[in-house]
Amino acid sequence: MSQKFKPRIYKGTRDFLAEQMVKRQYVIHLIEKTFEKYGFEPLETPTLELWETLSGKYGEEADRLTYRFIDRGNREVGLRYDLTVPLSRVIAMYPQIPKPFKRYQIQPVWRADKPQKGRFREFYQCDIDVVGTVSILADAEILTAIFEILTQLGFKDFVMRMNNRKILKGIAEVSGIASEQEGIMARSIDKFDKIRQEGVEAELIKGGIEIEKSKKIINILRISGTNTERLAAAIKILKSSEIGMRGIEETKELFHYLKLYEVPEKFLLFDLFLSRGLDYYTGPIYETAVEEPKIGSITGGGRYDNLIGMFSGTDSPATGCSIGLERIITVMEEMQMFPNQLKTSIQVLVTVFDPNTLDYSIKITKKLRDSNIYTEIYCGVSTLRGQFGLANDKSIPLVIIAGPDEIERNQFNLKNMRTGEQSTFSLEDLIEQVKFQLKSLGS
Amino acid sequence: MSQKFKPRIYKGTRDFLAEQMVKRQYVIHLIEKTFEKYGFEPLETPTLELWETLSGKYGEEADRLTYRFIDRGNREVGLRYDLTVPLSRVIAMYPQIPKPFKRYQIQPVWRADKPQKGRFREFYQCDIDVVGTVSILADAEILTAIFEILTQLGFKDFVMRMNNRKILKGIAEVSGIASEQEGIMARSIDKFDKIRQEGVEAELIKGGIEIEKSKKIINILRISGTNTERLAAAIKILKSSEIGMRGIEETKELFHYLKLYEVPEKFLLFDLFLSRGLDYYTGPIYETAVEEPKIGSITGGGRYDNLIGMFSGTDSPATGCSIGLERIITVMEEMQMFPNQLKTSIQVLVTVFDPNTLDYSIKITKKLRDSNIYTEIYCGVSTLRGQFGLANDKSIPLVIIAGPDEIERNQFNLKNMRTGEQSTFSLEDLIEQVKFQLKSLGS
Repeated sequence: MSQKFKPRIYKGTRDFLAEQMVKRQYVIHLIEKTFEKYGFEPLETPTLELWETLSGKYGEEADRLTYRFIDRGNREVGLRYDLTVPLSRVIAMYPQIPKPFKRYQIQPVWRADKPQKGRFREFYQCDIDVVGTVSILADAEILTAIFEILTQLGFKDFVMRMNNRKILKGIAEVSGIASEQEGIMARSIDKFDKIRQEGVEAELIKGGIEIEKSKKIINILRISGTNTERLAAAIKILKSSEIGMRGIEETKELFHYLKLYEVPEKFLLFDLFLSRGLDYYTGPIYETAVEEPKIGSITGGGRYDNLIGMFSGTDSPATGCSIGLERIITVMEEMQMFPNQLKTSIQVLVTVFDPNTLDYSIKITKKLRDSNIYTEIYCGVSTLRGQFGLANDKSIPLVIIAGPDEIERNQFNLKNMRTGEQSTFSLEDLIEQVKFQLKSLGS
Repeated sequence: MSQKFKPRIYKGTRDFLAEQMVKRQYVIHLIEKTFEKYGFEPLETPTLELWETLSGKYGEEADRLTYRFIDRGNREVGLRYDLTVPLSRVIAMYPQIPKPFKRYQIQPVWRADKPQKGRFREFYQCDIDVVGTVSILADAEILTAIFEILTQLGFKDFVMRMNNRKILKGIAEVSGIASEQEGIMARSIDKFDKIRQEGVEAELIKGGIEIEKSKKIINILRISGTNTERLAAAIKILKSSEIGMRGIEETKELFHYLKLYEVPEKFLLFDLFLSRGLDYYTGPIYETAVEEPKIGSITGGGRYDNLIGMFSGTDSPATGCSIGLERIITVMEEMQMFPNQLKTSIQVLVTVFDPNTLDYSIKITKKLRDSNIYTEIYCGVSTLRGQFGLANDKSIPLVIIAGPDEIERNQFNLKNMRTGEQSTFSLEDLIEQVKFQLKSLGS
C-alpha cells in the first residue's frame, strides 16, 4: 500500500463526475416524471440474477456476452443483461401484480464485450412496457409518452417511424414468401438504414428469395406519400391477406389515438421499411430517428405478445419500448441541447474573507439554503482569489463576498461569474437578487 | 423453454415493485435535493472495478466478502463493495477535480455473505464526503445536512452522538495506555451500545489493559451533564495531553458551527462512549441513533485524514458520513412515517365505459396530463367494476367515469377511493376538483 499506486478503471466502464452527473440526472428525472405522468410505475430488479433465469433467452451470442460466475455457495449467477428478462421473471413471480401492468425501469446492464468508442461494458438502459393487454391504446400511450419526452428534452427534428409486423407478414403472404422465410425478409429490411433499397433487394436474394419475389417486395415497401396515402396504398396491396389487414386495422387505430393525443402528424411516419430485426415482435413496431447527428435510432420497440409468456410460462401480451438513454445524452451534448451551461447543481459559492468573518459567511449560507438556494460555503484554506478560482473550476454561477467593510455596513457583495457584474446588496435584497440572477441565467 | 419454468430470485437480492419504489424514491430524492442544497455534487462510479483496486483495502474479511471473478480477457474484477474505495480511486485518477471536493454517492454495493433477515447481498449505500480540507467546518456541513434530512423525513426522537478520536487518544495518554493498545480501547468502547459500561470495562481488561487503568478509563468516559458540562469536565481531565486538547478544540469548533446553523442542542450529544470501531478515523466522529425502534445507528461517520492518501497515493484529508438508507426506509415503514398512504405515483385512473366512449376518456386523460396530473387511462378489457378493482389494487386515489349520460351533458363523474365520495363535474371544474382532492389527500 505504501508503494506508488497507479489507479485504473476497468475498461468499458465510466466514472460520472459532477458535470456528467447533473446532465444525466436532468435527462433521467425528466424521463421518470413524464413516465409517471402517463401512469407508468417504477420497477427495479437486482443486478445479480440466477444464471438459469438469464440463460438461453436470446440465443448463444447473448449468453456469451453475459457476465457470469459461480458464487461461494456454488450457485451460478450473472449480471443483468437487459431489462426484458427481469421483467418476465417479475411477471411470473408475482401473479398478484394488477394488470395492465405499466412499468418503467432505468438501470445499468452489462455486456462482456470488447469496449469501443461509444460502446460500453456497463451502461444504462431505460425501458417502458405495458404487460397484460392486447389493446393498441397501450402502444399509443408509449408513443405519446416518448414524443413528450423528446419534445421536452428539446428535440425538434425527429421522426417516429411506425410499422406493424402483421403488415410485414401480409406482404410476405401476398408476395408468395414461405413463412420460414419471413425472418430473412424482416432481417433484410432491417438493414434498410445502412444499405438502402438496392441493398435490401440484394439481401433478399442472397437470403434465398427469388429475384422476382424480391422485386415485388421492394415495390410494395416503397409506397410513398402522406401517411393516409401510404395506408390507402397498403390496403389495396393487402386486401387479400387476413393478417395483413389486421395489421392495417391496428395501424389505423394507433394513428387515431395519436391524433387524439395531439401528436403532430409531421412527427409520424408509416414506413414499411421499418422491420426491427428481432423475431419476437407481433404487432405495431416503432423507432425514433433524429436528423442530426447521424446516430441511428434513439428509441425503438413494439408489441411482443408471446415473448413474456415464453420466458415466464405465464401468457402475457405486452408492448414496450427502449429509450436509448446513453445515445440521447450523447446527442444532447453534441448538439448543445442542455439548458444554459448546466454543469453543476451548485448555484452560489459563499466565500470566506478571513477567519474573523467566517461566522458572518455561515449565517448568510444558512439563509440562502433556507430559501432553497443550492449553496456551497468555502471550507478550504485559500485566498479570496483562490476561492474565485474554485467557483470558476466548478462552474458555480454566483459568488458572495463578505469582508470586514461589507460586514460593518451589514451588506454583501454579489458577483455574477457569467456576466462579470458585481454589486453590493443589503441582506434583505440579497436573496431576491440571487433568485433573480439565477432565473436570468436559466438555472 | 416450453416446459414449466419456476422463476426464482437470487437469495439476498430484492425486486422493488411500485409501492416500494415510490417509497424509496421519496427518500432518495429528498436526500439528493438536500445534499445538493448543501453544495454536494453527485458522483457515480462503475459497479465493476479491477480487483487490484478493491483488494486489500479493509483486510481479509472484506476481501472474502467481495464478489469477484475473471472476465473473458483474463482480468480479475470485483463488484463495488463500498463507496469509499471508489472515491479514493476517483481522487487519485482525476487530480484536476477542484478541492474541497464535496460529493454524494447513492449506489448499490454487494457482499458475498450469507443473507439474513434485514441483511442483503445487494443493497444501497449512501455516502457524503468532503475531500481536500482539514477544516472542521466540513464536518459541521455534513452534520447539518444530515440533521436537515432526518428532520425533513419526519424523524423527531434522534440523537447525534459526537466524539473525537484525538480526545480518545488523549484519554489513552492520561490513562497511561500504550499507543499500541489504543485500537483495543477504541474497539472495546465501540461495543458500549450492546454491553454497556460494565461490559466495556470487562473488554478492556480482556484486551490486556490493567484493571486499574481500565477503571480509570471508564471513570473518564462516564462524564455526564449538558454538553457544556461534559466539555468542561473533559478539559480538566485532558489538560496535560496535547492531542487530547486538540480534540477538545475541534469539538468546541464543531459545536460552534452547529449553533450558527441552528441545529438545536437537544439533538446533539458529546458522548465519550462513542468510538466507531474502525481504525482509520483521526478527528471528529459522529453517529445518529433513533429512539424507536431499537435498530442501532442510522448514520455514522467521521474524519479520516489519512485513509484516501493511503488508498490513492495522494495526500487527501477527508471527512464523511454514511447514511443508512436501507435502515431509514425500514424504520419509516415500521413507524408509518411515509406521507399519507404513499403507495403509487399514479393519481387518477380514467375508466373506459365502453368502446364507444373511449375517445372521450382519452381526451380527458390528455387534459389531466397537460395539467401535470399523473394519470392512467384504463387500457385493458374489463367491466367498470373490474376497473375500480384495478384502482383499488394499485391504490390509485381518484377515479374518473365518463359514460354515455355524462358525455351527453359534457360532464365527468369523479370518485374518491379513500373517502368514497362521488360527484359529477363539468370539464371546467373537474381539473380543479382533482387538484383540490389530491391536495386534501396529501398526495
